[in-house]
Amino acid sequence: MSTDRLDAALELELEKLQLEGRAKPRERVIRGYIPPREKSGPRYLLEGSTREFLRMNSNSYLSLSHHPKLISAADRATHEFGVGPGAVRFIDGTYSYHADLEKRIAAFTDKTAAKIFNSAYTANCGLALSISSPKTYWIGDQLNHNSIIRAMRIAGVARSNKGIFKHNDMDDLHRCLEEVDSEIERVVIIFDGVYSMRGDTAPIDQINAIAAQYHSRFKDGVITVVDDSHGIGAYGRTGRGTSEYCKAQADVIVGTFGKAFGVNGGFIAATKKITEAVRQKADTYIYTNPLSVADCAAATAALDICDGEEGRALLKNLLARQDQFRSGLKDRGKETIDGPHPVIPMLVRDTAKTHDVVNKLYERGILVVGLTFPVVPHGDESIRFQINAAHKEDDIAFALGALDDISA
Amino acid sequence: MSTDRLDAALELELEKLQLEGRAKPRERVIRGYIPPREKSGPRYLLEGSTREFLRMNSNSYLSLSHHPKLISAADRATHEFGVGPGAVRFIDGTYSYHADLEKRIAAFTDKTAAKIFNSAYTANCGLALSISSPKTYWIGDQLNHNSIIRAMRIAGVARSNKGIFKHNDMDDLHRCLEEVDSEIERVVIIFDGVYSMRGDTAPIDQINAIAAQYHSRFKDGVITVVDDSHGIGAYGRTGRGTSEYCKAQADVIVGTFGKAFGVNGGFIAATKKITEAVRQKADTYIYTNPLSVADCAAATAALDICDGEEGRALLKNLLARQDQFRSGLKDRGKETIDGPHPVIPMLVRDTAKTHDVVNKLYERGILVVGLTFPVVPHGDESIRFQINAAHKEDDIAFALGALDDISA
Repeated sequence: MSTDRLDAALELELEKLQLEGRAKPRERVIRGYIPPREKSGPRYLLEGSTREFLRMNSNSYLSLSHHPKLISAADRATHEFGVGPGAVRFIDGTYSYHADLEKRIAAFTDKTAAKIFNSAYTANCGLALSISSPKTYWIGDQLNHNSIIRAMRIAGVARSNKGIFKHNDMDDLHRCLEEVDSEIERVVIIFDGVYSMRGDTAPIDQINAIAAQYHSRFKDGVITVVDDSHGIGAYGRTGRGTSEYCKAQADVIVGTFGKAFGVNGGFIAATKKITEAVRQKADTYIYTNPLSVADCAAATAALDICDGEEGRALLKNLLARQDQFRSGLKDRGKETIDGPHPVIPMLVRDTAKTHDVVNKLYERGILVVGLTFPVVPHGDESIRFQINAAHKEDDIAFALGALDDISA
Repeated sequence: MSTDRLDAALELELEKLQLEGRAKPRERVIRGYIPPREKSGPRYLLEGSTREFLRMNSNSYLSLSHHPKLISAADRATHEFGVGPGAVRFIDGTYSYHADLEKRIAAFTDKTAAKIFNSAYTANCGLALSISSPKTYWIGDQLNHNSIIRAMRIAGVARSNKGIFKHNDMDDLHRCLEEVDSEIERVVIIFDGVYSMRGDTAPIDQINAIAAQYHSRFKDGVITVVDDSHGIGAYGRTGRGTSEYCKAQADVIVGTFGKAFGVNGGFIAATKKITEAVRQKADTYIYTNPLSVADCAAATAALDICDGEEGRALLKNLLARQDQFRSGLKDRGKETIDGPHPVIPMLVRDTAKTHDVVNKLYERGILVVGLTFPVVPHGDESIRFQINAAHKEDDIAFALGALDDISA
């Protein structure tokens, strides 16, 4: 037996990805973390380099990953119950920390119940496995995250049971709903809360209003689902994310503990009946170990912080730094997309120039992500900056100064 | 908007599961852990009960979850880099602990490279996404784990590109290979290393030999993949699992850090080309945060222990306790399935009686899993006992005594 021929075939497939510009870059390895100082936020050390890097590509929007309360909560839970659960949830892999986190995130999202997953990725897969049926029709925004697209696959949703509307285009959502066959019993409209390549947000209030118009046409109604992974904790006056920003709740909220909350893991928050269906039918919940108790304890601590004065202060600084960076881009005549969220794109509209700017920022000690086709459409090439509550005024000024240098 | 009608529809679906005997039991919640004492292994406290329970339903076969070296490794990594990675792997979510664990598990499995996942579940999904193509044909054992079945779905493998052979039936594997269309370029034979409901194991040596006979028929050959989640670390002289037991390696090894290694997370170990294809094409690797550094550090510590004298001693005690329990079952005229693995089923061959024995063991402070249809075929109803390296001679005697009580 040998994989020589498979290896050779994969080599060709990988070369093709490279030629199409779709290959992922080499993984850089973080080897050190330098805590914030008076006038500078955290810095990171990379293998093969002696430079200190400012991260403008982290999803840990509140920088809670390094918060002493989260770290001590994780330690305490590990000492109490060990590093791994050793079993799946229904075979005594459920510890008090899992149950507590589920109660806590349900309360935070103002839902009656929640189930936690290893990631928002497997949460989306689990939701589709739980509520889809041969007579369920799924309608999604064209820019939905990969995990929603794969969720349709893992749940075996037929092509004829899917519709896609143009990004945030409510007229097109109407069109999709009009096209649903009358045999269909259940319609699910699923969308990201925040579109992570653009920083713009879903109009949940408008989507709900449209869903309501069609609700009575279908036996089980029209259900709205938001994946607010980038939004939850990261914006809105009290960090409730897109729901708070839109003053409207989707029927089901999928989210993550791995971005603003700074830990790992995902969740589905909804009614008791929906979460019980998840517990009974979501294979990505049933047949895999749950999060470690350390992750659960840290996530619970993160929710406590977000719900208090410290959380408000973090959000306030995050917003101030966003404003500083957006204004700075505009002052410099750079094109961006307006939005309330710490993802701030700078449109470059050229592939080579995008790569060039990313590299020059790297040389100046700033980590960002360049977005080129097929991640964004041709012509929309851009650089994604992610602002963080741990960024200082000087950090943002430093990044803007680097852009001046590069343009000069 | 309201989910009342969806809730009502789900209620009916859940009632149907209940009637079919397919509903999962209520989740018991572990509220306390009592470390081993001189003559008794660890005990667990459950919410709503004051009893101390012996777990014979844990996958943490070596009881490493509570090992001080794993706990201190997790603590140290958390203090160094925080509780969450804050990003996906290719956007600077890669820390030295991730890279180290990948090197360590590749070496342990005697492969050239490895990629880690949040679970073996998402690893199987990721493998299928990476190596499948419209001209790839997948052949699996009929008892394969749910994650392999869902991996076929998520990767969009057509029904016509799949074959299933009867459990461990090599003649039937031949039949499957004979049925593969000549247009097919790549054949993957995928199977569990240990069948977790039975404790029996895949004959990798025989499967490889059969694969070799068909290898030259297909452009990219015939590849063997073992998911050795229950095997790796848990048996074989040096804990290499099914590969060591069979003295034969599959081309690709999928496994978990969440069972014998006592932590959480999964991996794919294979050639550099295959793991690079995984890095480039496995959506369940690309679009989700990796494991926390704590999990990685703990898993690396677990591998260090497994590879040394302490690991050998744990395996030796595990084997002694297995022998003690198996002999005890046989002495009592109980039917079991022979095998080298710490999963030991006791066949009851009756649904009501299985539930009754499980409940009576629970009343005596022993946690086990009852397996009834559709988890096992009608007539194969059984009770799964999982032996653990932390079990003491007295624990096994206690469990056997409880069976005597119940029979009496």
